[in-house]
Amino acid sequence: MSLTVVGSVAFDSLETPFGKRERILGGAATHFSLAASFFTRVNAVGVVGGDFGEDEWEVFRRHLIDTEDIEIVADGKTFFWSGRYDYDMNMAHTLDTQLNVFETFAPKLSDSSRNAEHVFLANIQPTLQREVREQCANAKFVAMDTMNYWITSAKDDLIKTIRSVDCIIINDAEARQLTDEPNIHKAARKIMDFGLKALVIKRGEYGATLFTADQFFVVPAYPLESVFDPTGAGDTFAGGFMGYLASSDEISDPVLRRAMIYGSVMASFNVEKFGTERVDGLDYPEINRRFSDFKRMTHFDDIPFERAASVG
Amino acid sequence: MSLTVVGSVAFDSLETPFGKRERILGGAATHFSLAASFFTRVNAVGVVGGDFGEDEWEVFRRHLIDTEDIEIVADGKTFFWSGRYDYDMNMAHTLDTQLNVFETFAPKLSDSSRNAEHVFLANIQPTLQREVREQCANAKFVAMDTMNYWITSAKDDLIKTIRSVDCIIINDAEARQLTDEPNIHKAARKIMDFGLKALVIKRGEYGATLFTADQFFVVPAYPLESVFDPTGAGDTFAGGFMGYLASSDEISDPVLRRAMIYGSVMASFNVEKFGTERVDGLDYPEINRRFSDFKRMTHFDDIPFERAASVG
Repeated sequence: MSLTVVGSVAFDSLETPFGKRERILGGAATHFSLAASFFTRVNAVGVVGGDFGEDEWEVFRRHLIDTEDIEIVADGKTFFWSGRYDYDMNMAHTLDTQLNVFETFAPKLSDSSRNAEHVFLANIQPTLQREVREQCANAKFVAMDTMNYWITSAKDDLIKTIRSVDCIIINDAEARQLTDEPNIHKAARKIMDFGLKALVIKRGEYGATLFTADQFFVVPAYPLESVFDPTGAGDTFAGGFMGYLASSDEISDPVLRRAMIYGSVMASFNVEKFGTERVDGLDYPEINRRFSDFKRMTHFDDIPFERAASVG
Repeated sequence: MSLTVVGSVAFDSLETPFGKRERILGGAATHFSLAASFFTRVNAVGVVGGDFGEDEWEVFRRHLIDTEDIEIVADGKTFFWSGRYDYDMNMAHTLDTQLNVFETFAPKLSDSSRNAEHVFLANIQPTLQREVREQCANAKFVAMDTMNYWITSAKDDLIKTIRSVDCIIINDAEARQLTDEPNIHKAARKIMDFGLKALVIKRGEYGATLFTADQFFVVPAYPLESVFDPTGAGDTFAGGFMGYLASSDEISDPVLRRAMIYGSVMASFNVEKFGTERVDGLDYPEINRRFSDFKRMTHFDDIPFERAASVG
C-alpha cells in the first residue's frame, strides 16, 4: 500500500472576492499529497528552492508525507504562481508565473517512490510524465493529469503518455479539446480507446464523471454557498481519489465509485479556505460525515413503476 | 388520483443538425400530458384552432388523455412555433412565433379538471396561472413552470403566483435571474422562501436538482451521444415528475426523489426523436429499464473510511 505523486510544489499568491494571501504553500503535488495522506502513505516527488521554509516542511511532516524525493536546490527559488479569481470562481486569471527551479525539474525517484503500487503524474511535461511512469515498473495503477497547454503544444507526445497509464483525470474542456469532440460521451469513448481502465472528467460546479470499460458513474459537486479559493481543487480531488484506491485491496468498479466520492469530499473541503489550510486541519469524522452527505444527496430507491390501475 | 395540466398545444416546425419537420404536434401541455399519461390519468386544458386534425387528436386519445377542456376555436389557427437548433442543442433559435388562438387563451376548467389533486401550470402568463390555481380548491400539490420573459416583464405578478403554488420547476438561468443571485444554492434558498414545498432546477446536460425544506437531491442527465430534438424536454420532465407524484399515495421525500428520476427518464426519451414521436411509442419495460440505468449511474456503497493501519 503506497502512493507516489510527481508534480509541482509551489508558493501561491492569491486574490479572491473573499481576501488575499501572499506566498502560501501550494502546488499540485502538495494539494495531492495532503488529500491522499488521509488514506495512505504518500511519497512526494518534486523540487523546491532554498526559500522553502520550516513552516512548509512542517505541513508535509504533520501528514507523514515522505519528502525524501523533494529535491532542494539551495541557491534556487521555489516555483511561484500568482492569480486572481473574480466572482466566477471557475476561472483563474494568472497574474504572474515564475517557474524558477521547476523549469529544469528532473524527477529523481528513490527505490521507495519507484516501487509504489499506485502513482499519480500531476500536470507536468508529458515526456517527463512518461519517464516517471517507465521507472515505476511495479505500479498496478497509474493515473495522470494534464492541461490545455500540452494538448495544444505537445499532443502526440501527450497521447503517447496517456497510452502508458491506466487512468486520466481531466476537466471537460480538456476532454473536448483532446478529441475535437463537443459531445462529452463521445469524447470519453475516444479517450478510453487510448487503452485506459478509467477516465475521470471533472465538471467544476457540476461534479465529476467516471467512465470505465462498461460503466458510467456521476457524482454531483457538494453544494457550497461560497467557494472561498478553488486553487488546488483538482489536485485535491485526485489525492482523495488515488489515496482511497491505494488504501483498497483491489481496483474494482465499486471501489472506483467510492474513490470518486472521496475525491469529491476532499475537493469540497479544499475550496472552503485558502490554500492547504482546510485540508491540513481535517479529521476523519468530518471526512466520513461529508461522504455520507454525498450518499444522502444522490440516493433513491430503485422501485420500478407498476402500471397504475387507473392508467388504461 | 388525477392530474390537470394547463398550457399550450401547438404545431412546431423544427430544424436540427439531424433533420427537419414541418408542423408536427408540440406545445407544453402536449409534451407534459404524454409523459404523465404513463403514470396517471391526465386532464389537458388548452386551446387549438380548426386546423388541429384527427392525427393530432389521436395522439391524445391513444394515451387516454382527457381533452374535454381543450377548447376548439373552429375559425382560428393553432399556436405555431418554428425554431432551429445548431450543434449546441441547449439553445433554441426562434424563427417564427404565431400565437393565433393562444393569444386570447382563457382556460376553462370542467369539474373534472378543477377537482384534480395534482395540477401543473405550464408556462403561460402568471395571472392566468394564478386564476387556474385558485379554481383548483382541492389540489394537494400544484407545480408551475415559467420563463425568462415573465421574470423580466411581470416579476411581481410572477412571485405572487409562485407564492400560491407548492413547487416550481425552472432552469438554472431562470433561477439566477429571478433572485439576482449567481450562486445556485443561494438562489434556491431565496426561491424556497416564497413558501414552496419543493423546487426543481433543471440544468440541461448536467441534469436536475431537487430542493425541499431540508434536503437536496441531484440527478444527472442520461448519457446520450446524440440529442436529436430537445423541444419539449422540460415539459416532458415535468410530466414524468408530476405523473409519478399523482400516482403515489403521498408526497414524501423518497417519492419526490423517484419522481425526479421518472422525470429525467421521460425527458431522456423525448430528445431521442423529433417532437412527441419517441414518448408516444414508449412502453413500461423501457421506462423501468432506464429508471434502473439511473440507479446504476449514481449508486455507491456508503462505507465510511476506516483509518488505515499504515496511516499514522
